[in-house]
Amino acid sequence: MWGKTVKAVILAMTIGESMSIANDTPDYALVIHGGAGTITPDKLTPELEATIRKDLLAALAAGQRILAQNGSALDAITETIQVLENSPHFNAGRGAVFTAEGTNELDSSIMDGRNLDAGAISGVRNIKNPITLARAVMEKSPHVMMQGHGAEAFAKEQGIETANDAYFHTDHRWQQYEDAKARKAGPLLDHDGKGTSQEGPSINKATNGDYKFGTVGAVALDRAGNLAAGTSTGGMTLKMHGRVGDSPIIGAGTYANNQSCAVSATGHGEFFIRATVARNICALMEYAGLGLQEAADQIVLQQLVEMKGEGGIIAIDKEGNISMTFNTPGMFRGSLTNHKEASVAIYKD
Amino acid sequence: MWGKTVKAVILAMTIGESMSIANDTPDYALVIHGGAGTITPDKLTPELEATIRKDLLAALAAGQRILAQNGSALDAITETIQVLENSPHFNAGRGAVFTAEGTNELDSSIMDGRNLDAGAISGVRNIKNPITLARAVMEKSPHVMMQGHGAEAFAKEQGIETANDAYFHTDHRWQQYEDAKARKAGPLLDHDGKGTSQEGPSINKATNGDYKFGTVGAVALDRAGNLAAGTSTGGMTLKMHGRVGDSPIIGAGTYANNQSCAVSATGHGEFFIRATVARNICALMEYAGLGLQEAADQIVLQQLVEMKGEGGIIAIDKEGNISMTFNTPGMFRGSLTNHKEASVAIYKD
Repeated sequence: MWGKTVKAVILAMTIGESMSIANDTPDYALVIHGGAGTITPDKLTPELEATIRKDLLAALAAGQRILAQNGSALDAITETIQVLENSPHFNAGRGAVFTAEGTNELDSSIMDGRNLDAGAISGVRNIKNPITLARAVMEKSPHVMMQGHGAEAFAKEQGIETANDAYFHTDHRWQQYEDAKARKAGPLLDHDGKGTSQEGPSINKATNGDYKFGTVGAVALDRAGNLAAGTSTGGMTLKMHGRVGDSPIIGAGTYANNQSCAVSATGHGEFFIRATVARNICALMEYAGLGLQEAADQIVLQQLVEMKGEGGIIAIDKEGNISMTFNTPGMFRGSLTNHKEASVAIYKD
Repeated sequence: MWGKTVKAVILAMTIGESMSIANDTPDYALVIHGGAGTITPDKLTPELEATIRKDLLAALAAGQRILAQNGSALDAITETIQVLENSPHFNAGRGAVFTAEGTNELDSSIMDGRNLDAGAISGVRNIKNPITLARAVMEKSPHVMMQGHGAEAFAKEQGIETANDAYFHTDHRWQQYEDAKARKAGPLLDHDGKGTSQEGPSINKATNGDYKFGTVGAVALDRAGNLAAGTSTGGMTLKMHGRVGDSPIIGAGTYANNQSCAVSATGHGEFFIRATVARNICALMEYAGLGLQEAADQIVLQQLVEMKGEGGIIAIDKEGNISMTFNTPGMFRGSLTNHKEASVAIYKD
């Protein structure tokens, strides 16, 4: 896996260029997030923080195994997101938050930057790994997006693994649900009438277990130069039954185009839909010639901040440039390339 | 309503400019579509064509009454789309196509160009005017998008008018459904595995009643300079239960931003989602400086054609420029401004 780097070093020495050029152009790269929100050091116990870092590293390792063996970006993000869905510490798959009716409704989407193929599901129950169902919709159905019972029937037809309600039930999410109901909070209205951010993590150590982590997502560049993006979530605690956030919306929570970049978003979904966040970052690269970080800054740190839309994104472009940009105090995140080992972070640098 | 035009004429005479400048900048404007597809003169009886033209004109008149009285673009498109939903000749509201299970599942979305507020519903049954529910989601809920039973429960809470199954049942749609089932057609797969276009009209006079009309939509500019867009549909005949097309997807079937334009799309929804059609047209204006028609041409006549995505769009920009662009043989469409009376068209010019 170091072959190309060594060649680049020799080339760099030959033509006298800086090593940073070789380092900036990885063979493959992988970036993940586990939700953005008001995550500050005082809100995580050292034990919980260590567990979360371990789960993030495990997710990165799962994707790296595929990318290192010349696997596709699509396969890498599918595998990576499943690891995050299986962790009870993120709001996706196992560990998803509860709706106002005490159920878990799951959303997910995936996109292939090679050909703009895409798949998405929303409002499904009892699907162990929603990202695999989104991928089946992309590859095995004539459709891009399926919802509710129809999506569940398709999952059954395709032999997608299911899990009973008990699998998704985690004590800390149920406690959050009970606490939120007791406060009669519901999704609170802000001055825009569009709800306060409840999708990102909002951790409160004082109330044991009263924390939530956000949506998960992954973006990757593979050795063939292809990009892919995927996102999976349980949505907002106490969300109204039937609410759809940005995670299953192609162009809002997920977008990938080999011409520009791959993006997965996390945050207050209503704002992310209205700003078509994932597509907008790619469009700024394609149409305005911005670099990846400039584009991410313009959407996440300017447009969303002006709209009061809290959250963040991870993105990768065809050169392997990486962006992890958020307008909240923290975002669970991690990245690696073929010549930069996996690292994870939680708070602002 | 002619005051501004008269003033413009006087100004034009005073400074010696051409009248065309005054004519190109209307006080208000309204554009509608009733679906795009393989609509050719041999496929419509003169009687049916006359009825459809009458319904399109009635929809335009309903919106004009509001715009002429200084009403908002948002109110105008809401009213206009309801007229089209109430017509049994379009695939939205009454006259919606049947799913594979013989039900009517309705999708709709609406967006306000002033502040990017948006509302959308997907997979709802028994809602008489889906556009009014999309608007209620925008204005009365903390959410942007709601689906299925959750959206229906919200509709009930909001007192949105319902209608029984019989109201939505039209003989020609049922005949289409029976014919399609008999042919065991379902949503046929094309070479991309993404289905053939079934959302746009596909009219066959030979089989009595075996025709379908597409999605409906409207975009408007009001006297205050605000843009709005809305779309409503029954989706594809024999679509899989739970399939979501582009109509309820903000950025795909509907987008409006006062900075650029308002767009409503109709066609093979899967491609329109993957190409984020409505947002992309606006993004080309905002980021690449293209004019409205150039932007529409690039997306509808180039990108979608390359992807083999059939359909069309209507759009309007802040200067009142209008685009009705489609890559199919026909699109039911119509437009008016404060100084250009309503006109409707069906086939290519």
